[in-house]
Amino acid sequence: MAVSFMENEPFSPIKYVYEVEEILYKGKSKFQELMVFISPDFGRVFVLDNIVQLTERDEFFYHEMLTHIAMHTHPNPEKVVVIGGGDGGTMREVLRHKCVKKAYLVEIDKKVVEISKKYLPFVSSGLDDFRVEIHYVDGAEFIKKQQDVDVVIVDSTDAIGMARSLYSEEFFKNIFHCLSYNGLYVTHSESLGFHREMAIEVQNSLKKIFPIVDLYSFPIPTYPGNWWSFAIGSKKYEPRKPNRETVDGTKIYDTQVHSWCFLPMSLYNRIMNGMAKW
Amino acid sequence: MAVSFMENEPFSPIKYVYEVEEILYKGKSKFQELMVFISPDFGRVFVLDNIVQLTERDEFFYHEMLTHIAMHTHPNPEKVVVIGGGDGGTMREVLRHKCVKKAYLVEIDKKVVEISKKYLPFVSSGLDDFRVEIHYVDGAEFIKKQQDVDVVIVDSTDAIGMARSLYSEEFFKNIFHCLSYNGLYVTHSESLGFHREMAIEVQNSLKKIFPIVDLYSFPIPTYPGNWWSFAIGSKKYEPRKPNRETVDGTKIYDTQVHSWCFLPMSLYNRIMNGMAKW
Repeated sequence: MAVSFMENEPFSPIKYVYEVEEILYKGKSKFQELMVFISPDFGRVFVLDNIVQLTERDEFFYHEMLTHIAMHTHPNPEKVVVIGGGDGGTMREVLRHKCVKKAYLVEIDKKVVEISKKYLPFVSSGLDDFRVEIHYVDGAEFIKKQQDVDVVIVDSTDAIGMARSLYSEEFFKNIFHCLSYNGLYVTHSESLGFHREMAIEVQNSLKKIFPIVDLYSFPIPTYPGNWWSFAIGSKKYEPRKPNRETVDGTKIYDTQVHSWCFLPMSLYNRIMNGMAKW
Repeated sequence: MAVSFMENEPFSPIKYVYEVEEILYKGKSKFQELMVFISPDFGRVFVLDNIVQLTERDEFFYHEMLTHIAMHTHPNPEKVVVIGGGDGGTMREVLRHKCVKKAYLVEIDKKVVEISKKYLPFVSSGLDDFRVEIHYVDGAEFIKKQQDVDVVIVDSTDAIGMARSLYSEEFFKNIFHCLSYNGLYVTHSESLGFHREMAIEVQNSLKKIFPIVDLYSFPIPTYPGNWWSFAIGSKKYEPRKPNRETVDGTKIYDTQVHSWCFLPMSLYNRIMNGMAKW
């Protein structure tokens, strides 16, 4: 490799090295270091604090799987809140649902949105949609003042540092209270390969607050550990079964994939009990 | 990192870097370069031609998933052939099935077995079992002379170079002929993330020969692309449903995981048609 970028994901025992064709942007915000580079294999790559957030080639895996399980479980989501996700990829998926009337993007770092609009149009394309309202504030504060939300999606950086407060029980309680009587909450909860303790912790915390809690997973090629987990908390609907038809335009999600991505209960239980550990 | 090892997997657009605590062995056979090192995170790591073959910490993912689907689909496998797999991990899993009377290990490189017996006892432990017969010959030649085999498992290196002949239609035909009337064949077929063309090619080749062909997958933390695929060819039994109880001693496999690891048909079809492509 001529020029390369070695990711520094503190959780990951394997360091991932990418070939770099060209660096398009490198700079700092009040919150973090930002970089966009072109990889010959992955297209444009967006990096925060030396951790790859998304690549042009495989971002749809993560954004579709984060968004569509909760959105297809709810029969008619009209009001949606995305916390984090300033690149816009999650919002692009939310907007595929025609029933959505209002979608809030709550991103603490305005620079993420600016950089994405400039360099990552494949994810930021939806941010100018008339249904979207962007707030540059702390998501944990924002949701304290909300109510009657149908779906809350947390699309944060890794569950360390800045994003840690988005995995606290206090935050989960505030989410619960801002949701309508049949609302759903979803977040990613790290890798079942490399950071399984985190996935277990989130499940256990959510179970203290939500009547229905589950975990689903999908292999995400560019996230260390790859066997990526998502935690879902629901007030009314069993999330393993979608209540709607597949929206148009997805690449990996459909309603069969929806049910499939939940672990069989035997494996879920073994993972929660600390077995099946690598 | 003080000392590190950067894997050189020619298929992989991301290079994986491991921290190295100590190199236990480094040498050459007639066929390849061999190395065993200790990683603080993964324990002992076995490397062939600069590609990680297995790690102490996560090898069970691959060995269990490669072995137990075919072995649990067959109602009574007595005669089993493992091609490659000189480390012994696959054979360890085969031997969990008490019904097995004879298990051939066909490894072209005697050095792999020697090194595994010396440095990797957690996988090589079963190689001295009375049911095991080791042949140091080319697997493609070996199976031409076999018959009435219940299960053939190909546990090869990547499907390039030396192992390429183990993915040819001629080889698949010879496998078919060595199997008994209800026999099964299974191989890994690379990553659905990074090397999907290979997985599709193997499916298409097998369909020319076997009446029942399918693909299953599992995320393997240390294999590049991670979303690892396995191809199965069957003469009689539908492999999505196990015909036996879970054998004792597995960490990740059970009969619920068995059915789960097959893709939903919607996703299988989209992958085979070149859609859902990252």
